[in-house]
Amino acid sequence: MEQILGPAVPSTRAVLRPIGIRDVVITGGPLARWQRINHEASVPLGLEQMERSGVLPNLRRAAGEGEGPFQGYRFQDSDLYKQLEAISWEHARAPEPRYAEFIDEAAAVLARAQRPDGYLNSHYQVVKPDKIYAELEYSHEMYCAGHLFQAAVAAARAGVGDNLLAVARRFADHLVAVFLTGGNDGIDGHAEVETALVELYRLTGERTYLELAGKLLDNRGKGLIMDSGMGMLYAQDHVPVREADTAVGHAVRQLYLESGIVDVYLETGDESLLECSVRRWEDLVATKTYITGGHGSRHDGEAFGERYELPPDRAYSESCAAIASIHWNWRLLLATGHGRHADLIERTLYNAFAASTSADGIRFFYVNPLQRRNDLVEDAYLGRRREWFACACCPPNIMRLVASLGGYLATETDTGLQLHQYVPGTLAGGGARLRVDTDYPWDGLIRVTVEEAPAGEWELALRIPSWSESTSVNGRLANPGADGYFRIRRPWTSGDTVELQLDMTPRLMHPHHRIDAVRGSAALQRGPLVYCFEQADQPEGVEVDDLAIAPGAEPRAITVPELDGVGRTALLEIDAVAVDQPRDGLPYTAKPSATTARATATAVPYFQWDNRDGGAMRVWIPLA
Amino acid sequence: MEQILGPAVPSTRAVLRPIGIRDVVITGGPLARWQRINHEASVPLGLEQMERSGVLPNLRRAAGEGEGPFQGYRFQDSDLYKQLEAISWEHARAPEPRYAEFIDEAAAVLARAQRPDGYLNSHYQVVKPDKIYAELEYSHEMYCAGHLFQAAVAAARAGVGDNLLAVARRFADHLVAVFLTGGNDGIDGHAEVETALVELYRLTGERTYLELAGKLLDNRGKGLIMDSGMGMLYAQDHVPVREADTAVGHAVRQLYLESGIVDVYLETGDESLLECSVRRWEDLVATKTYITGGHGSRHDGEAFGERYELPPDRAYSESCAAIASIHWNWRLLLATGHGRHADLIERTLYNAFAASTSADGIRFFYVNPLQRRNDLVEDAYLGRRREWFACACCPPNIMRLVASLGGYLATETDTGLQLHQYVPGTLAGGGARLRVDTDYPWDGLIRVTVEEAPAGEWELALRIPSWSESTSVNGRLANPGADGYFRIRRPWTSGDTVELQLDMTPRLMHPHHRIDAVRGSAALQRGPLVYCFEQADQPEGVEVDDLAIAPGAEPRAITVPELDGVGRTALLEIDAVAVDQPRDGLPYTAKPSATTARATATAVPYFQWDNRDGGAMRVWIPLA
Repeated sequence: MEQILGPAVPSTRAVLRPIGIRDVVITGGPLARWQRINHEASVPLGLEQMERSGVLPNLRRAAGEGEGPFQGYRFQDSDLYKQLEAISWEHARAPEPRYAEFIDEAAAVLARAQRPDGYLNSHYQVVKPDKIYAELEYSHEMYCAGHLFQAAVAAARAGVGDNLLAVARRFADHLVAVFLTGGNDGIDGHAEVETALVELYRLTGERTYLELAGKLLDNRGKGLIMDSGMGMLYAQDHVPVREADTAVGHAVRQLYLESGIVDVYLETGDESLLECSVRRWEDLVATKTYITGGHGSRHDGEAFGERYELPPDRAYSESCAAIASIHWNWRLLLATGHGRHADLIERTLYNAFAASTSADGIRFFYVNPLQRRNDLVEDAYLGRRREWFACACCPPNIMRLVASLGGYLATETDTGLQLHQYVPGTLAGGGARLRVDTDYPWDGLIRVTVEEAPAGEWELALRIPSWSESTSVNGRLANPGADGYFRIRRPWTSGDTVELQLDMTPRLMHPHHRIDAVRGSAALQRGPLVYCFEQADQPEGVEVDDLAIAPGAEPRAITVPELDGVGRTALLEIDAVAVDQPRDGLPYTAKPSATTARATATAVPYFQWDNRDGGAMRVWIPLA
Repeated sequence: MEQILGPAVPSTRAVLRPIGIRDVVITGGPLARWQRINHEASVPLGLEQMERSGVLPNLRRAAGEGEGPFQGYRFQDSDLYKQLEAISWEHARAPEPRYAEFIDEAAAVLARAQRPDGYLNSHYQVVKPDKIYAELEYSHEMYCAGHLFQAAVAAARAGVGDNLLAVARRFADHLVAVFLTGGNDGIDGHAEVETALVELYRLTGERTYLELAGKLLDNRGKGLIMDSGMGMLYAQDHVPVREADTAVGHAVRQLYLESGIVDVYLETGDESLLECSVRRWEDLVATKTYITGGHGSRHDGEAFGERYELPPDRAYSESCAAIASIHWNWRLLLATGHGRHADLIERTLYNAFAASTSADGIRFFYVNPLQRRNDLVEDAYLGRRREWFACACCPPNIMRLVASLGGYLATETDTGLQLHQYVPGTLAGGGARLRVDTDYPWDGLIRVTVEEAPAGEWELALRIPSWSESTSVNGRLANPGADGYFRIRRPWTSGDTVELQLDMTPRLMHPHHRIDAVRGSAALQRGPLVYCFEQADQPEGVEVDDLAIAPGAEPRAITVPELDGVGRTALLEIDAVAVDQPRDGLPYTAKPSATTARATATAVPYFQWDNRDGGAMRVWIPLA
């Protein structure tokens, strides 16, 4: 099959085709900053942690080369696989000999640890060799395998790590022998291997990988695995995937599962898979999605929770769930061509996802709440970003997405190119070469210069974000089609430009009345950026916990120099009041006795929060 | 020491003295109903479960008499102890030979299971004999011992179960030998034994029990136990009890601990203990208490959560926490004489606690939310009351409190009697005998007849609940003292009556502005009863999830016959609107497009909810 250097490259049913990471150069804006920080700070930290957190030592133990106890969780291997995937994409984007070396060295350890039959999992080989495939409800064996396959695919597309691909294929062949042709009907409690098997199929052409992915999807929801103790919804094993109407249980599991479902559709054309995934997507977006794009409302079970259960303070909104959502929406975009998926990718990318990493790239959030109260007691541990985690699923996951961001910006068809995300730089696809000049998302003007285009009619499609209430193209009001794109189909001459002006008016956003947890409150949004109020930006003596928007007030953009610890930003301010109410006895009274004082409240983009002090923060602010 | 037949009978420092269960006869109202249902339905079910859920079989295994694996949790023994306590109080209140027989039989099994050195715990004896006292952070060994002591104390005060007391004393002596004089500085991860040891001291006069309770309190917060994996706050081992400013972690643990703290103060006079407990009480009431009196805002860790974190839908508000709060407040009331503790007992009793049991007494809530959405998916399991639980701490705990309710209504001093709760019936104390006639809490008129009083001046103190905005006594406006009581001190003649008229105007209650989760909403309260809106009572086609109170509307009392499945009640209605808003795409919009239609909403007392269908319910209803 044709190989494109990027994540998720379907071969047959896609309405849109990805363009490769090397065909995109990001030259500025937040994405360039994130990639630079990822390269300079996050990835080096991640590589260090592969030794420090026990990941490579565990594998050496499995290879019979080390001493000492197994360290960490049973899915510890997956940290390495995500780290390998991250540096594979990074090597494609900004080659470094040390990345290729690290991949080769790790692949060698993996090859030595791998059993002759292809099985590979340091936890089960070292700690529980008698329980291999016997605890699939929580073993994460196929989950880890999936991350290995994704790493191997990324490395192969980047032209490194042949040895890694050999390890991956041996393990994949073992899974096929056991679970496809060997009569074992088990599935993994944590979905992930399904989408990875399809990618490995796309790379290798080995059809049994696709068949196994399909079988694993078919077997889910039949109770073929035991209850891990978290209930059958936790692992989406309560009802077959084609019948489930709503996303439930562990959010990351559901979202990885959805990528696998759309991937199998993309290669087999099984419409029932696309249908069920789109059905759940529509329900999820309308009832279980934070304004930041985040998913997962509960710490308990890391679960979605009920429809409209979207607490800001106890939002789980795991960084991995934001990543999984971007993966899924990318596949839905390729499968349907509908801009609503690119809209959600944008919202998630600039808010829930971007907030996961500190401005300096060396601290990460696992959980991304939309509110932090002052004086945390119970949440003191989770309240701030941390360098690493005992369960470190998020940091290397963040690194692999940042490294591969170039793959999610645009697509091509036989007759044109679709711009989904607006980032300054150049890109080539659909036979054309474009330059994009913009200060987005700080500013709404995007100038696209066609540097090269095929002869004859050719189509440039520009996504008009649903938040842009009044959009112009080349100075004229432009309404997008039902799919969210404004299309220009004509012959092009080198140097032709298109000026897209998006509506960057800052706005108060109001929640649906069923979202009880933020009733009577509004959030500030400007362009794709959701804002929050941090204690550090408020007037002396005004507590974020007591702020309310003054009646009729509207947000105003204010210009600031670079903000210390945050960097380039765009602040908003709004007329507000500070509420004062006695704290004595029960906090429920027939006659409330609050008083208020005028204040001006200042908001910073949510993704830039927690880069100053550990003070209070809130996205949703009460309306006085 | 003088023995009073009731729970928690301090001997030295109490400002108020309890009066015994047998000195109180409850003849009507909800409490009589709860006691009747407890006697007829709940207790028989509980006794059956002692076999069915494995509790007695486990103990027979420990006695070397049974076969089969250990069943249930490591604290399974405690179910039996709470059940024994329940039937001990019940035997005092309404004697039944089968109760005494059950106690004797169970005591015999316990005696046979008990090791010669006094240690007794079926889980550790059967499953982990090498781990005795080696896993105190989660073993519950002393927690179980505490419940055994409480059962033995109750039985002894009720005049049954000598054999049970002997078992309890042997175990208590063993704890003393290990943890007081034996050099082991361990404490139990789950507080409970502290208050129980003090009660056992009160019964037996054995001072080492009190000393051990004091030592366990002194040792808490020094990190002497391991982190059970839930963090040090979970078991209140993060800071010494005298220094902690706020209730944290597992709510039931904190609340049982507080009872132990006040109990040790009551017997030793260590003011630093009373002070720290009162300090946490004031903080807890102002910032971490539901309007139902419930405690515990999180499923995750069964924890309190942060100040003002009081979500209605995901309230944990465990039934056991309501019971523990009543225990603690009773002790604070005895220690301080302040009516605010009786106020909170009333609120908790008629709302958070009473809601735990179905009208027919055979189903129980573990978790008591203040909101249930329609179409539950993730919460389908927890959504309705259940007959029993794998972790069945709540049902027998409920039974022991209901059986002992007579002990919490009134107190005496040398010069008078204090009426804390208004229940029709008779009571004797402070040298007097009273009859109370009332239809409380359905009606606010309470007539107290002094049937017998000591010669000379004698004082009757009547608690004026803080919710009663306008109260009269014998027809004249009556303002309570700072401690919440209206006192009548004079000579009395047999047949003298006092008529107390409480203000039963139904009212909209508004939350403190920092309680984000119910902002823009109000709750209905009438007298001590908090109300809720259940789907079953609303007009056809109006969903509880879409209800909002019409601007300016006030609740009205409406008269209804007995409600099917619920029994005697008093409903409220209020003018409302039904909100309709599209459910399409993200639920956040710059221009909300909701429409409303008029409706009349009907509310039922919260404690009577979930006795019809499994529909939606909410205590807090939005203000349109």
